[in-house]
Amino acid sequence: MIAVDWGTSAFRAYRLGADGRILDRRSAARGILTVEAGGFASVLAEEIGAWLDEEPGVFMSGMIGSRQGWKEVPYLACPVDLEAIARACGTVDWDRGGRAFIVPGVTCRDPHGVPDVMRGEETQILGAIEELGPDAVVCLPGTHSKYVRVRERRIMDFTTHMTGEVFGVLWRHSILGRLSDTEAVDDEPAFDAGVDRSAEGQGLLHHLFGVRTRGLFREIPGPGLASYLSGLLIGHEIRAAAPPAPVAVIGAADLTRLYCRAFERCGVPARPIAGEPAPRGLWAIARSLGATP
Amino acid sequence: MIAVDWGTSAFRAYRLGADGRILDRRSAARGILTVEAGGFASVLAEEIGAWLDEEPGVFMSGMIGSRQGWKEVPYLACPVDLEAIARACGTVDWDRGGRAFIVPGVTCRDPHGVPDVMRGEETQILGAIEELGPDAVVCLPGTHSKYVRVRERRIMDFTTHMTGEVFGVLWRHSILGRLSDTEAVDDEPAFDAGVDRSAEGQGLLHHLFGVRTRGLFREIPGPGLASYLSGLLIGHEIRAAAPPAPVAVIGAADLTRLYCRAFERCGVPARPIAGEPAPRGLWAIARSLGATP
Repeated sequence: MIAVDWGTSAFRAYRLGADGRILDRRSAARGILTVEAGGFASVLAEEIGAWLDEEPGVFMSGMIGSRQGWKEVPYLACPVDLEAIARACGTVDWDRGGRAFIVPGVTCRDPHGVPDVMRGEETQILGAIEELGPDAVVCLPGTHSKYVRVRERRIMDFTTHMTGEVFGVLWRHSILGRLSDTEAVDDEPAFDAGVDRSAEGQGLLHHLFGVRTRGLFREIPGPGLASYLSGLLIGHEIRAAAPPAPVAVIGAADLTRLYCRAFERCGVPARPIAGEPAPRGLWAIARSLGATP
Repeated sequence: MIAVDWGTSAFRAYRLGADGRILDRRSAARGILTVEAGGFASVLAEEIGAWLDEEPGVFMSGMIGSRQGWKEVPYLACPVDLEAIARACGTVDWDRGGRAFIVPGVTCRDPHGVPDVMRGEETQILGAIEELGPDAVVCLPGTHSKYVRVRERRIMDFTTHMTGEVFGVLWRHSILGRLSDTEAVDDEPAFDAGVDRSAEGQGLLHHLFGVRTRGLFREIPGPGLASYLSGLLIGHEIRAAAPPAPVAVIGAADLTRLYCRAFERCGVPARPIAGEPAPRGLWAIARSLGATP
């Protein structure tokens, strides 16, 4: 089968063998925001057309199932497990491959009744369930970081934090990025100083202004300011989320390393989950539908 | 004399009579970021040239005294009073008006040693000191909101929150502005809902994502989303600043009204300070230097 993790900015496809092993892979900067309405089938054919003769079953997860994607697949309400997600998959028919499946997103309400949503992370969690074990607290860092509570292999509830996107827009569009050209987060002492600062008083909006003043007063060198801002935001995220330890972190390698560093500094035991859980999750969903050998 | 409040994005000039009364005024979107280095004297001449024959004394406050302004006037460390600020004014010589004065900025350190800065707000506080009384807690809302503690007519310390700028960049550059074209903050129930939300758990970065989900789920109508975001940010600012009541609010009329509404909702007594304190502060500084009749 073919597994496709199709998000806002990235397209990642995997050809999987009969045992779920990754035989081949492709990735491209062809996230759904780069594709015009009606153009998804041709993008998919261009990217994975060569695989289709052998592996016609296509399973997709991520923002491809959103209102801006190929077809909106409604959110499933928590708690949800593998079988419920598999049953709720939407389908699209396309000329090249017959029928393709799209995984639904998941929704829940926080204790105050405010809705939350995810698309794609549920599939990663299903794909990592062997490493996670039946009960876990999972952090999936990124543009919109998620904290997900798993009990008896079910996704019980979760919380999103806009950390990555806030970092990006503040660095690129506010005064905070004007003191340095270095957006890379690679200065560990500055990152740690930001994480530590997040424990102090008077709130994030005050701490953000301190990124500027500590730059102005040269207390944090220019090339370290993005690292300081990143540590500050991630520290605020972790302290506000206050996840019950231990936390399993699923994400890109660099970001996972940064988060594990920040968790440790906040006194929260955390461990990285290696590998690529999205194709494994899509494999599990396909198997639950009887679509694997 | 001529009083000039010259900030990042706006230029405001006032011709003052012998008693400090405003005789005439001009304002223009010619903040320091719109002026090229070396161009400040000609902008000033263009804007207030007609007044110069009668009133040659020019006093300026705001970002005009910053590194990006006409001439950098070093920050004075708190605590500071009128006389200390007047003595520390910088001067520039220019062909049209002889010598012009620039008010210094003020700096302090928060309880954790992180520096903070202001330029312009100190002058507004000096101009409002009669209404404030000798001891006050002052909020100056805006791009970079300030909370300032005044004791015996001295500025003791203060805290900056990046609230206004964070609102602007999130609305214009993040997903939060994509659900609505209305940037106006004029939906009072949505604003109040944002202020109330700021009291709930899991932090600002989570609450920000809720602006999107409550829009997606149509719990807050599109035209109210900017008001909800504004209330959320202002509520977080007020609760984190936790000013000892009562608070005096100095700012533009619309913003002052919004803030007084948010303070009330957070249970903090607040009162607006009317009038235009910047020219009054510049008048007081000039008088302290013996530069008024």
